[in-house]
Amino acid sequence: MTHTGRHFLQIPGPTNVPDRVLKEIAQATIDHRGPEFADLGVEVLERLKGIFRTHGPVVVFPSSGTGAAEAALVNTLSPGDRILIFETGWFSHIAWKQVAERLGVNVEYVPGTWRRGASPETLEQRLKDDTARELKAVVVVHNETSTGVVSRIADLRRAMNRSGHPALLIVDAISSLASIDLRHDEWEIDVTVCGSQKGLMVPPGLGFNAVSEKALAANATSKLPKAYWNWEEMLKANKSGFFPYTPATNLLYGLREALRMLDEEGFDNVLQRHARHGDATRAAVRAWGLDIVPENPAEYSNSLTAVYTPEGHSADRLRQTILEHFDMSLGTGLGKLAGRVFRIGHLGSFNDLMLAGTLSGVEMGLALAGVPHKPGGVLAAMQSLTASTQKTEPASAAR
Amino acid sequence: MTHTGRHFLQIPGPTNVPDRVLKEIAQATIDHRGPEFADLGVEVLERLKGIFRTHGPVVVFPSSGTGAAEAALVNTLSPGDRILIFETGWFSHIAWKQVAERLGVNVEYVPGTWRRGASPETLEQRLKDDTARELKAVVVVHNETSTGVVSRIADLRRAMNRSGHPALLIVDAISSLASIDLRHDEWEIDVTVCGSQKGLMVPPGLGFNAVSEKALAANATSKLPKAYWNWEEMLKANKSGFFPYTPATNLLYGLREALRMLDEEGFDNVLQRHARHGDATRAAVRAWGLDIVPENPAEYSNSLTAVYTPEGHSADRLRQTILEHFDMSLGTGLGKLAGRVFRIGHLGSFNDLMLAGTLSGVEMGLALAGVPHKPGGVLAAMQSLTASTQKTEPASAAR
Amino acid sequence: MTHTGRHFLQIPGPTNVPDRVLKEIAQATIDHRGPEFADLGVEVLERLKGIFRTHGPVVVFPSSGTGAAEAALVNTLSPGDRILIFETGWFSHIAWKQVAERLGVNVEYVPGTWRRGASPETLEQRLKDDTARELKAVVVVHNETSTGVVSRIADLRRAMNRSGHPALLIVDAISSLASIDLRHDEWEIDVTVCGSQKGLMVPPGLGFNAVSEKALAANATSKLPKAYWNWEEMLKANKSGFFPYTPATNLLYGLREALRMLDEEGFDNVLQRHARHGDATRAAVRAWGLDIVPENPAEYSNSLTAVYTPEGHSADRLRQTILEHFDMSLGTGLGKLAGRVFRIGHLGSFNDLMLAGTLSGVEMGLALAGVPHKPGGVLAAMQSLTASTQKTEPASAAR
Amino acid sequence: MTHTGRHFLQIPGPTNVPDRVLKEIAQATIDHRGPEFADLGVEVLERLKGIFRTHGPVVVFPSSGTGAAEAALVNTLSPGDRILIFETGWFSHIAWKQVAERLGVNVEYVPGTWRRGASPETLEQRLKDDTARELKAVVVVHNETSTGVVSRIADLRRAMNRSGHPALLIVDAISSLASIDLRHDEWEIDVTVCGSQKGLMVPPGLGFNAVSEKALAANATSKLPKAYWNWEEMLKANKSGFFPYTPATNLLYGLREALRMLDEEGFDNVLQRHARHGDATRAAVRAWGLDIVPENPAEYSNSLTAVYTPEGHSADRLRQTILEHFDMSLGTGLGKLAGRVFRIGHLGSFNDLMLAGTLSGVEMGLALAGVPHKPGGVLAAMQSLTASTQKTEPASAAR
Repeated sequence: MTHTGRHFLQIPGPTNVPDRVLKEIAQATIDHRGPEFADLGVEVLERLKGIFRTHGPVVVFPSSGTGAAEAALVNTLSPGDRILIFETGWFSHIAWKQVAERLGVNVEYVPGTWRRGASPETLEQRLKDDTARELKAVVVVHNETSTGVVSRIADLRRAMNRSGHPALLIVDAISSLASIDLRHDEWEIDVTVCGSQKGLMVPPGLGFNAVSEKALAANATSKLPKAYWNWEEMLKANKSGFFPYTPATNLLYGLREALRMLDEEGFDNVLQRHARHGDATRAAVRAWGLDIVPENPAEYSNSLTAVYTPEGHSADRLRQTILEHFDMSLGTGLGKLAGRVFRIGHLGSFNDLMLAGTLSGVEMGLALAGVPHKPGGVLAAMQSLTASTQKTEPASAAR
Repeated sequence: MTHTGRHFLQIPGPTNVPDRVLKEIAQATIDHRGPEFADLGVEVLERLKGIFRTHGPVVVFPSSGTGAAEAALVNTLSPGDRILIFETGWFSHIAWKQVAERLGVNVEYVPGTWRRGASPETLEQRLKDDTARELKAVVVVHNETSTGVVSRIADLRRAMNRSGHPALLIVDAISSLASIDLRHDEWEIDVTVCGSQKGLMVPPGLGFNAVSEKALAANATSKLPKAYWNWEEMLKANKSGFFPYTPATNLLYGLREALRMLDEEGFDNVLQRHARHGDATRAAVRAWGLDIVPENPAEYSNSLTAVYTPEGHSADRLRQTILEHFDMSLGTGLGKLAGRVFRIGHLGSFNDLMLAGTLSGVEMGLALAGVPHKPGGVLAAMQSLTASTQKTEPASAAR
Repeated sequence: MTHTGRHFLQIPGPTNVPDRVLKEIAQATIDHRGPEFADLGVEVLERLKGIFRTHGPVVVFPSSGTGAAEAALVNTLSPGDRILIFETGWFSHIAWKQVAERLGVNVEYVPGTWRRGASPETLEQRLKDDTARELKAVVVVHNETSTGVVSRIADLRRAMNRSGHPALLIVDAISSLASIDLRHDEWEIDVTVCGSQKGLMVPPGLGFNAVSEKALAANATSKLPKAYWNWEEMLKANKSGFFPYTPATNLLYGLREALRMLDEEGFDNVLQRHARHGDATRAAVRAWGLDIVPENPAEYSNSLTAVYTPEGHSADRLRQTILEHFDMSLGTGLGKLAGRVFRIGHLGSFNDLMLAGTLSGVEMGLALAGVPHKPGGVLAAMQSLTASTQKTEPASAAR
Repeated sequence: MTHTGRHFLQIPGPTNVPDRVLKEIAQATIDHRGPEFADLGVEVLERLKGIFRTHGPVVVFPSSGTGAAEAALVNTLSPGDRILIFETGWFSHIAWKQVAERLGVNVEYVPGTWRRGASPETLEQRLKDDTARELKAVVVVHNETSTGVVSRIADLRRAMNRSGHPALLIVDAISSLASIDLRHDEWEIDVTVCGSQKGLMVPPGLGFNAVSEKALAANATSKLPKAYWNWEEMLKANKSGFFPYTPATNLLYGLREALRMLDEEGFDNVLQRHARHGDATRAAVRAWGLDIVPENPAEYSNSLTAVYTPEGHSADRLRQTILEHFDMSLGTGLGKLAGRVFRIGHLGSFNDLMLAGTLSGVEMGLALAGVPHKPGGVLAAMQSLTASTQKTEPASAAR
């Protein structure tokens, strides 16, 4: 079956990369030690601060987001250090618990149902109980990409502050940055971890660490072996816009353009757009009569929606039908949600009609795959979208 | 209002250009007299024959489609020659009657309502009446881009044959080629005129003439002045894949790729895809309770649909609302349809979800602009699409 | 033989297209009747004036340069009008004499040797002799692309003025614009004709007419049939940045970028750069002991150099050797220079090292093809280039 | 000073990326867990084996080459392990000694002058002396990018085999792969380390490890902490063309295209091309009367040439002059060669005329910067190039 037109890449990342970004990454590679590169480096590193909402440095690695997670750990911890990781889903497990353990860190994994975010109450209690101050860091996935559940970082921060515990706060913002409100400085996050391929609208291949003063202090004494991920030499070279080893120049071209685009749109508009699309998607799912993974409306994700298929109906079979018939990629269920959940990405370079096309693909796929549902999801989504759109004045016959 | 994601270019041409085509036109320009160019020229000229369904030559001009129309006339006619043009809409007027008259050709313009295609009966009668054989050519716009009305060329050809009249048949296939069935040889068309920017999925800038033996004979005696448009030198140079003057090399790169894509999809699949999308669009319009321009179902266009807004509601106001809110371009009403009609292009590089997004944009735009309509158009379109899609076997719980 | 690295496209046009321009033409096609297009149209049309050095309008056709030549004629002349064309080489013949005659214009072809430009003296005399004022226009190729001979337009203009003859002055600037000094207004040119693919650094597919007030007046009374080429509707639509028929949108994207680049470099710098490269190329040819076509140093071209191979040595054989071994395209000898001359293009997007590579390819090709010559051409060119480059202060041991 | 034409990127990497590769990396990002990606992954991983001359697996990381060096170490060694690193220049220090030490490995650094490659005799002796078999690995930089000195891996392998020592052989082929003969299997290399941005002609951002059976066995028992760099999960996922975490999809598109290009050219032709360009470059340097860093002709690099400036003349001042006047980037002197050496990259996507342009830029730069030298380097290079080019048959007058 030959596909025509554009593929709908509606997994929750990598997201659709804008043409403006793609054309930039296709520009000729330049000398990464020359003056033209310095301009690129300085602009990118400065603009990143705005997106992470920090006045501190943001380190950029040629790596995936998983690499950036590893970097956060090796730069702040020592072998045998104890850290707290909240179980929020597949990525809290695979990208954090498993990585940390492989690096020789002692992980205390706070169990979770995958339908709720990290609990501020649990965190506060656990930190208060840690009178010996053994916990060196708390790791929270801001937006669990496997479930579409958001952990309330501001509340978690307040819980930490109430406990008076000095543990670092490490936040995985891989699928939240530039989509869902995230404030590195205001929320006193110590390391915010991200990748290029989600809200930042750049192809995969860049990892990020926004780093607090406290994290820098931890870096100075941390003993996990590190070379590639070492912040120290990065920050030194970054001062003049350079990197200690060859950076992924062409991806940085794309990042510069994406950061300019986000700036043109305006930070608040970016968040509001994702909120509109999150609302409209959930309206569609409700109309279909299907369930979503998150239980708490305060924890609904605006970058993706994970939807259960009814008992006895494979979500992967549905995804396959949609891919074959409508050339749209949706996210698979991960870990214990495998086969039971499909995930709709609605983040990054996106708009109302792309969302309408996306939801139409799901609605038609449900029909073709014989998954029980009520039609009308797209209609509900359109009503949600128009309700949140400013009405134009009544059309007159005048041209 | 900053737009995000991809623009929906749903005018009836230029159409959305596939990435594969865009990346080709961005390749370095080459020597148009070198061996590498010859390969390009030969492949493009050969593949074009398949698309025009002809064994004869297809001439390619660096020009718009209007230029190709002019070329058809100056290559076959002499000053003062009498020709018959059927009034089908704006383009039969602007691209044919007006051009022909400016070139010194004597035009007999068969009046039409813009809601019907050229009448085979009228044609047969008119040719039979022309006992002096004064009419040198009959010009018909296959798919009137201003109305979405298709003229039935095969029937018109049969009418001509019944009349025994020797006039040439010149067909404007600008918005039908590679979208709606068109058979240059089988229907004994003498000149089929086309441009690159519609069903061929290439940016504008190339014009085409498929040329019959009879047209070539007419060329030999035609006396309208011609240099740039002259087929003779073109055909001579084309034999080895070259052109008599500098061709639009980069657009030819794009054309080669587009022709390869059409070949990969398969000619019948291309037509069937456009038919499905035409059906689904009309299902949506019916559900909205709106009228379309063509009156005869046998003349419905599968490349675009022209829709009336209700009396007192400006179609251009609606288009503006949709452009502002949903970043989608629709076609304006032209000539006497100005302000009363908007046109939805559903041709070229397109698929089901792009169509669903397009129709969603119209449905939401109708709501925002306060144009009276019934919701449910997208729903009807989805039902139309799924009905014509092969069902997959029932989904089981197995992954 | 597989070629690696970049092809050297050193024909005198199409020229090497800058990456910045290529990436622009690969952007998505937009609605040519929408507001975004108007911005494009307005910017391009305004910037073109600066390059043509005119305050009047510049018309842009989707066409080759030959089309723009035809446009100049049909817009200003009537059937049977008498015009004067100076024989300067292949293009004065093929693009002007032949085209004009095919269009029904009466051509008086002033013979030339192909080694000299149009003679102001001859022109003045001929116009003085035309007491009946029968000559409607004088056509001169500014830079004969087949010979590398420049006609001195300012002197020709003065000769016309001295004669007091009202004939229009039509100048073919196809291979001179944005390379060699050309001043539409100051030199009172009536139509300046150009194409996109030479000094303008854009792929082929756009033709230009810069039009004087006097040419517009001639247009009002000219009787040659015209539709596609008609200035009148163009100028009307251009006022708001639009075009009467579908323009070659993606090539216009490229043109906008190229015009911005020329503006960044600065008009005088552009001319000076071409002068440096013309000088260096001629220095190389002299060192090789070969002859160039132009006889008069005041008529040397800065956009290309046409070089004779010694008697008995085929220039095309040499070109083939160079193409095979060094992946460089050079221009062939045209018309009576066929086989005797090869042409080196040094215009458009170019720099010192590209020129050095180009001349090295010629020098190595001469050796490989066994063409008698003295080595040292590249060395002479380098000396010419460094002599015209500002010396930097003596290098010290300090880093 | 505005630069025109194409920048000459003649540092020894990142190298000039071919347009074919750039256009591929600009294609839309796809689902890294879908079937289309699997095809990409399988093709790339399979083609890489051919380039590394191995039947074993090649692991691809989203990383710089430095990351791939780190990966080689953490996958095979345990904390406190002793390894032998040969001092060959800046990169044996910065990318190997320093990285290894930071990771907790015990480095024995065999001193070198930077003008000779690793000594097989020294290696054999050292291994024979290590009767306790304490040395776990020997690290050699195949082509020292800071000096242009090649270490003879085959000879080093033979020395190891003679010693009967079981140490692993880790080879840094970052600036030799696809430029200089390198045979992973035949030379029994255990880990060959590479990056994408040199001979592979891809922008930076991908790191490689070709892995022997013996290295895999070492991996199973190695105790250095590892997660991101872990071969185990990579190899498992790679079996079906996938990756354990998000790969740098768009760079992989580019890599696929580059690997296809290398295959089209043919492996032997690639090496021979680099050899011709190395020879020609050295001929130029000799003609200028300057010295190069390597002392032993058997160790001359074919991918770059490091040239001393005469005492008292700053190499960086020269590089700056060349960058400003001729828009060419050359490599700087690193470490103890800073200011004394400039490096000419002649690897990757390159050809004779690009080399001639490069050497012309150096020759003109030497003149402008007042660096004592004899002219004639480009002439010597051209003679070297034509001598190694098959002569065409004598040119005849026939076209």
